[in-house]
Amino acid sequence: MKELNKGLNIVPGIQTTGLHIGLKQSNKDFALLSMPKGATVAGVFTRNKIKAAPVIYDQALLEKKSVYKAIAVNSGNANAMNGEAGLRAVEETAEIVAGALKIEPDEVLVCSTGVQGVPLNVQAIADHIDEAVAGLQTDNSLDAANAIRTTDSHPKMLDMTFDLGGQSVHIGGIAKGSGMIHPNMGTMLSFLTTDLDLDQSDLKKALTHAVDRSFNRLSIDGDTSTNDSCLLISTGQVKPDNKEEALASFTEKLTELCQGLAKIMAQDGEGATKYIEVFIEGAASEEDAVAAGMALATSPLMKTALFGQEPHWQRALTALGNADIQVFEPEKIDLSFSSEAGKVDLAKNSQALDFDGAQAQAVLSAKEINMEVHLNVGSSKASVWTCDFSYDYVKINSEEKAY
Amino acid sequence: MKELNKGLNIVPGIQTTGLHIGLKQSNKDFALLSMPKGATVAGVFTRNKIKAAPVIYDQALLEKKSVYKAIAVNSGNANAMNGEAGLRAVEETAEIVAGALKIEPDEVLVCSTGVQGVPLNVQAIADHIDEAVAGLQTDNSLDAANAIRTTDSHPKMLDMTFDLGGQSVHIGGIAKGSGMIHPNMGTMLSFLTTDLDLDQSDLKKALTHAVDRSFNRLSIDGDTSTNDSCLLISTGQVKPDNKEEALASFTEKLTELCQGLAKIMAQDGEGATKYIEVFIEGAASEEDAVAAGMALATSPLMKTALFGQEPHWQRALTALGNADIQVFEPEKIDLSFSSEAGKVDLAKNSQALDFDGAQAQAVLSAKEINMEVHLNVGSSKASVWTCDFSYDYVKINSEEKAY
Repeated sequence: MKELNKGLNIVPGIQTTGLHIGLKQSNKDFALLSMPKGATVAGVFTRNKIKAAPVIYDQALLEKKSVYKAIAVNSGNANAMNGEAGLRAVEETAEIVAGALKIEPDEVLVCSTGVQGVPLNVQAIADHIDEAVAGLQTDNSLDAANAIRTTDSHPKMLDMTFDLGGQSVHIGGIAKGSGMIHPNMGTMLSFLTTDLDLDQSDLKKALTHAVDRSFNRLSIDGDTSTNDSCLLISTGQVKPDNKEEALASFTEKLTELCQGLAKIMAQDGEGATKYIEVFIEGAASEEDAVAAGMALATSPLMKTALFGQEPHWQRALTALGNADIQVFEPEKIDLSFSSEAGKVDLAKNSQALDFDGAQAQAVLSAKEINMEVHLNVGSSKASVWTCDFSYDYVKINSEEKAY
Repeated sequence: MKELNKGLNIVPGIQTTGLHIGLKQSNKDFALLSMPKGATVAGVFTRNKIKAAPVIYDQALLEKKSVYKAIAVNSGNANAMNGEAGLRAVEETAEIVAGALKIEPDEVLVCSTGVQGVPLNVQAIADHIDEAVAGLQTDNSLDAANAIRTTDSHPKMLDMTFDLGGQSVHIGGIAKGSGMIHPNMGTMLSFLTTDLDLDQSDLKKALTHAVDRSFNRLSIDGDTSTNDSCLLISTGQVKPDNKEEALASFTEKLTELCQGLAKIMAQDGEGATKYIEVFIEGAASEEDAVAAGMALATSPLMKTALFGQEPHWQRALTALGNADIQVFEPEKIDLSFSSEAGKVDLAKNSQALDFDGAQAQAVLSAKEINMEVHLNVGSSKASVWTCDFSYDYVKINSEEKAY
């Protein structure tokens, strides 16, 4: 798995571009993806009941048809909470893109991220669409990764190649956002490409599996935006010998790539000074393990303790006691922290161990920390990715203007 | 309803004291309440699955018997996550108090708040119990209110007197904590007194009703501690003519007093610069109204926006879209803010109104802010109390030592 390599373009035939069209004051804010004829797309979207116009539009379209030729993405404006006018803006965007690419509007999907509740400047898209089309290339996924950024401090892009019965299969991905941390800025988008020939329902199955185990196990502050969208594109060039085996292998690899992107997002969480991997084991079910991990990843008290580099295992147990864990023995929890500086066991059977305070400080002073929790009631496990909660989180989110 | 007046002592026969016994480095850290013969006690406790030893002890005892003569409360040590030794420490505390007051150990209830996972120094209680008993008086509820504080910036105490068919009924209360904001410090305790003669099951009914509509509608950071306890004591001196009417009137008044204490807690939230009352109307049920209010009261993005005095109505709608609200129309939400500086309507039908930015800033610059949300799907309503999320919250909770 390679970072900042070929990204979406690792799949032959995928063309990308990213440019500045004026939705943001500076920096690229419009990406265009062009797919070869016959490309199939599957998508998963936010579970927020308030959905942005492009989410409503894409979900409805993907229910009806599976083959697309382009995806247009803007940053700087989420096109959420704009009522009927928001939906018209999506339709107009699809028409503008279709006109420039000489395809049909229903062959275009649209995604947006940025400020909510402000009308989208569709004219800016119209004014720059020819420039965008002229810029489409097979080696500039990084421009697209840059164009979908909002408060991200860097572009997020991964790709991988794996062998499937002698054939090379490629998967590429770009993403923006740090999980659910900035709803006002439109939060998470991810676009994924592959050349493995799978139909839309199998692509959706693989994508749902991967997203459930990656982006859905990432939390910065517990909020889920109105715009979260993840689209998986298959060009269909690699025909598998055995569809069932291919789907299983692909699902595993796609999950790995999405987890890679999720980790990069956690590392880039707003104001984050530390990347935290919470590893829960000994749970009665995977659902319980995820619930336990998410309870720790969303507790402001746990996250401020990690920022302060203090071994507050008691805050962790308190958060676990409040979590929606089906099988839970209050007196059985073990907790450790580890990092490049070593490992320290803090609690056994929900009580303090006599640990070395200096060693705990050393472990917690690292930039990347593993938090290991054993529930001791079963054999299921799960990882969840998060970051600490710093002054800069408050700074970014209190100073950001509403308009 | 009077603040910092007679508190618990407004009920004749209730004796209180508060003193420093050395569990904390300085300040009072032990309170003793003594009740006249025949006093009935009802209690409600934390729903956290990990419960402190005194919570486990009191809950079991209150299941068995209803009449008590004393309540011992320490701050500085929560006596949570201490295993069997923690339960023995509670039993020893009850024995020490009973010995000094010449009563039985099962006539004593025990509450604790403070650091978790550290053994309770029972010897300190034994060493100071005679001093505590000697200090019991009928006019020093404020000492008790001070002795149960941890990170609270001031003592919290209210009392009221109301007429019930020609008889005066009294209710007094003290509380500590700012809701669920500091699990490591043991969080919320409240003690309530009355002279109205009600049996334990009616006291429990009234208390549950009041707590559900007051302390349970308060959030600072969404965490619920291992120690939350609320005990209601009746001396039984006022015999009502009509038990049913008395219970109804008392429940209403008790709810009012508990809401008063809850508001004082929200105002004293860790790091808080603003007190926020979230008022939800037009909900399909009271449960939905509370779910909507709590979603806003626990959203870090909403709370940092309020600290920043920015009218981020979009963050509010995003949080509502994620809430567990049974009947929700995404396109129907209205939102306003008001304060002593006036009122500003920000959104109608989930879209931006053309409001005056300067007026919005003025409204949000006040210390006490009302956030009014109309779901427009029914006629139920509820208020929830909270505060903003500032640098000082991060400071307090990142700098606090684990031990």
